[in-house]
Amino acid sequence: MALQKKITPVLLCGGSGTRLWPLSRKSYPKQFVPLLGDETLFQASARRLSGADGALSFARPVALTNADFRFIVTEQLNLAGIDPGAVLIEPEGRNTAPAILAAALHAAATDPEAILLVAPSDHVIPDDAAFRAAVARGLPAVAAGDLVTFGIRPTHPETAYGYLELSAPPGDGGAPVKLSRFVEKPGAARAAEMLAEGHFLWNAGIFLFRARDMIAACEAHAPDLIAPVRASLEAAETDLGFLRLDPAAWAECADISIDYAVMERASNLSVVPFDGAWSDLGGWDAVWRESGPDTDGVVASGGATALDCRDTLLRSEDAGLEVVGIGLDNVIAVATRDAVLVADMSRAQEVKRAVAALKGKGAAQATQFPKDHRPWGWFESLVVGPRFQVKRILVHPGAALSLQSHVHRSEHWVVVEGTARVTVDDEVKLVTENESVYVPLGSVHRLENPGRVPMVLIEVQTGTYVGEDDIVRYEDMYAR
Amino acid sequence: MALQKKITPVLLCGGSGTRLWPLSRKSYPKQFVPLLGDETLFQASARRLSGADGALSFARPVALTNADFRFIVTEQLNLAGIDPGAVLIEPEGRNTAPAILAAALHAAATDPEAILLVAPSDHVIPDDAAFRAAVARGLPAVAAGDLVTFGIRPTHPETAYGYLELSAPPGDGGAPVKLSRFVEKPGAARAAEMLAEGHFLWNAGIFLFRARDMIAACEAHAPDLIAPVRASLEAAETDLGFLRLDPAAWAECADISIDYAVMERASNLSVVPFDGAWSDLGGWDAVWRESGPDTDGVVASGGATALDCRDTLLRSEDAGLEVVGIGLDNVIAVATRDAVLVADMSRAQEVKRAVAALKGKGAAQATQFPKDHRPWGWFESLVVGPRFQVKRILVHPGAALSLQSHVHRSEHWVVVEGTARVTVDDEVKLVTENESVYVPLGSVHRLENPGRVPMVLIEVQTGTYVGEDDIVRYEDMYAR
Repeated sequence: MALQKKITPVLLCGGSGTRLWPLSRKSYPKQFVPLLGDETLFQASARRLSGADGALSFARPVALTNADFRFIVTEQLNLAGIDPGAVLIEPEGRNTAPAILAAALHAAATDPEAILLVAPSDHVIPDDAAFRAAVARGLPAVAAGDLVTFGIRPTHPETAYGYLELSAPPGDGGAPVKLSRFVEKPGAARAAEMLAEGHFLWNAGIFLFRARDMIAACEAHAPDLIAPVRASLEAAETDLGFLRLDPAAWAECADISIDYAVMERASNLSVVPFDGAWSDLGGWDAVWRESGPDTDGVVASGGATALDCRDTLLRSEDAGLEVVGIGLDNVIAVATRDAVLVADMSRAQEVKRAVAALKGKGAAQATQFPKDHRPWGWFESLVVGPRFQVKRILVHPGAALSLQSHVHRSEHWVVVEGTARVTVDDEVKLVTENESVYVPLGSVHRLENPGRVPMVLIEVQTGTYVGEDDIVRYEDMYAR
Repeated sequence: MALQKKITPVLLCGGSGTRLWPLSRKSYPKQFVPLLGDETLFQASARRLSGADGALSFARPVALTNADFRFIVTEQLNLAGIDPGAVLIEPEGRNTAPAILAAALHAAATDPEAILLVAPSDHVIPDDAAFRAAVARGLPAVAAGDLVTFGIRPTHPETAYGYLELSAPPGDGGAPVKLSRFVEKPGAARAAEMLAEGHFLWNAGIFLFRARDMIAACEAHAPDLIAPVRASLEAAETDLGFLRLDPAAWAECADISIDYAVMERASNLSVVPFDGAWSDLGGWDAVWRESGPDTDGVVASGGATALDCRDTLLRSEDAGLEVVGIGLDNVIAVATRDAVLVADMSRAQEVKRAVAALKGKGAAQATQFPKDHRPWGWFESLVVGPRFQVKRILVHPGAALSLQSHVHRSEHWVVVEGTARVTVDDEVKLVTENESVYVPLGSVHRLENPGRVPMVLIEVQTGTYVGEDDIVRYEDMYAR
């Protein structure tokens, strides 16, 4: 058998949903959070589509994200031991069609025959091997020039998903079937009918195709997209290994999904049925379902304690936070260090109302986590007082904060793990565990981790104003 | 009219209930917590029974508490502007009879005619003036030698309270009525009957009497209590203004309530009916009721947000903590920095099960608050790492920590509010805002606040072990 061509995974990870608030927030959305187990959904998606498995093998992945998440993407891939082939940065979200076309054009520049597997990175597919077998089953159709989609065999009459109507019921072997048409999210009655009829599958939004076939499909069905996406790639800037698509050209792209722009119009479509478990984790009710409720229907994670509860999800998202439920029925309770959601399970789809309410009152919790991820590591505010603030700061090995100064605050740094190199005006010195440095107001300073292990320090800021925006940057290795 | 003798309030504040966990914990129970409004229940109780009101006037209060709470008692009275007459420390809880007898003997030592008003300090009585009027109505009965109890006119057939059966239905004027007998907590049917019959009142556990009458009643009905209580007072030690009852003598006292020991046997009992609102806040359902639910039955306090909720209590107990409820019905959710309780309202009396469960898993939250009150102020742990801990420490003006040293840790102190006097081995210096001090491992050190305003500092501990018990104390102004 001929060596199979490697498949390039295209991981879509620029979205920022709020249905899983308070764990998913605009500043750090659900694909980057360990919702089930220790891995994040993004890491699990990348790992699922990596390495080799029999005749199937994967090339390095291409990630499509936005500027805010670029360092999270590289950090999480790095922690998962996966080296990205490219990280394309969308100047703004334009739905899936421009993103997928950009990935296809990017791949075709070196190999028009490149096979791409486009996948959202915030879904859960517990059985990796079964999914990769499904991918392998789609390859003959791809070789024949089809655009392949993956259809999940429905387990219940779901009204929150779109459906794929097949030309014939799928066989037991899971061979590709020609697609008749896409079906919008149905009402409950129609969903029940489709479940019974047997030739309707859930649309998982996962696509397998040759780069040139997707480009051809766009040329045929969405020709207006071609020029601006091509221009945004041609004018893209390379920046610290990221490929920043050109904002002006990108702004010309229609904001449209690949389903609307291409799939619903193309005729060279095949569907690979997938019988394994799958969820888009589109709400806390889905997380509850996917977390494996016990015989009482209870999921208690992160050390949460359930007493006499039924059909209830209790999550503590902080090691120092105890969550106890008593006598609850059909309730979701998710507690983080700075926000607690308690909702009736039937209201899982209304969590965005909580986010809107908090936005309305100006609460940072609507969009921001206490832990703020930066290219060099992260920091979190431990306490804010009238004229002071205390932060914990972690700097990755080899990383450095910008050379900066502040107008309103002085800083006391105490290193508690690892070793820092500290610049204060003309002085540069190493500071290690149990040593401290004073950074006077107005001094030009920089914090670096020259070591091999993460460096953690406690920063005590004092001054009349301790906001993040009191900063003058002189040099920044991350081009901020 | 002759000048009325001053009444000495006796505030019972040694209890530590868990039914309002996570806000009430063994280390800092509900009477010391601002459950309703800005005042704590203890402060509200002390204020209610202070000053003068027409012919009624109060002497300085006597507080009965245990050693753990002694500094909380004096701090809270101090903040309320109330100077205690005495703080008696019970070596261990022996229920109300020994405590009340101790207060009576203590008062009788200087004035056997002293009039004492004994009151729990964890109840809520919103209308102070009405309650003081009720106290005034009891004075003639006291002058006639009666022990006076206060009976709350029931508003519903409560099964969680004991009742007082009156010899006749109370009149509209609220004049004292002779007590027929005490009635144990009834079943639901009996409670409904008593409510209908009209001559049963709730037993509020509040008593008004002359010191010598209570002593005589104990001599008659609980003679075995007299000798050990008297001995514990005679051998009591005065310690920083506290009167520590002698533990050996105290251990001889029966553990018995004043109702069982005396009231149910005495015949010189009158009941003053009280028509005003009263609650023992015996559970979160009572707090919900007393907090004034809106037309949907919702109480959302501390910035909590309720969306489409009914008959629900949502409390955020930390300024940095957002709590959002969606579509809840009959739910209690109380969130603190380190613990969250979510319970069906009907399970309010089962909160102690949550505490037991956390004790079982060794969680500090079962009994301890993150903020630890000490005689000199308080501290809270902000973060604990593998070999470090960060604390915020507040020291009251004029207060000082013990002279101490540590075997396992060094400390970095950064003053962020006020001024500290710091001793490190032979050196003593003032350290003010934005200044820091290093306290090496093993050095003998002391922290004082010589100023007029509270001093706050951030302490960063580093070392192989950062537990509270790594401390050698050399001198301590609080005799610990």
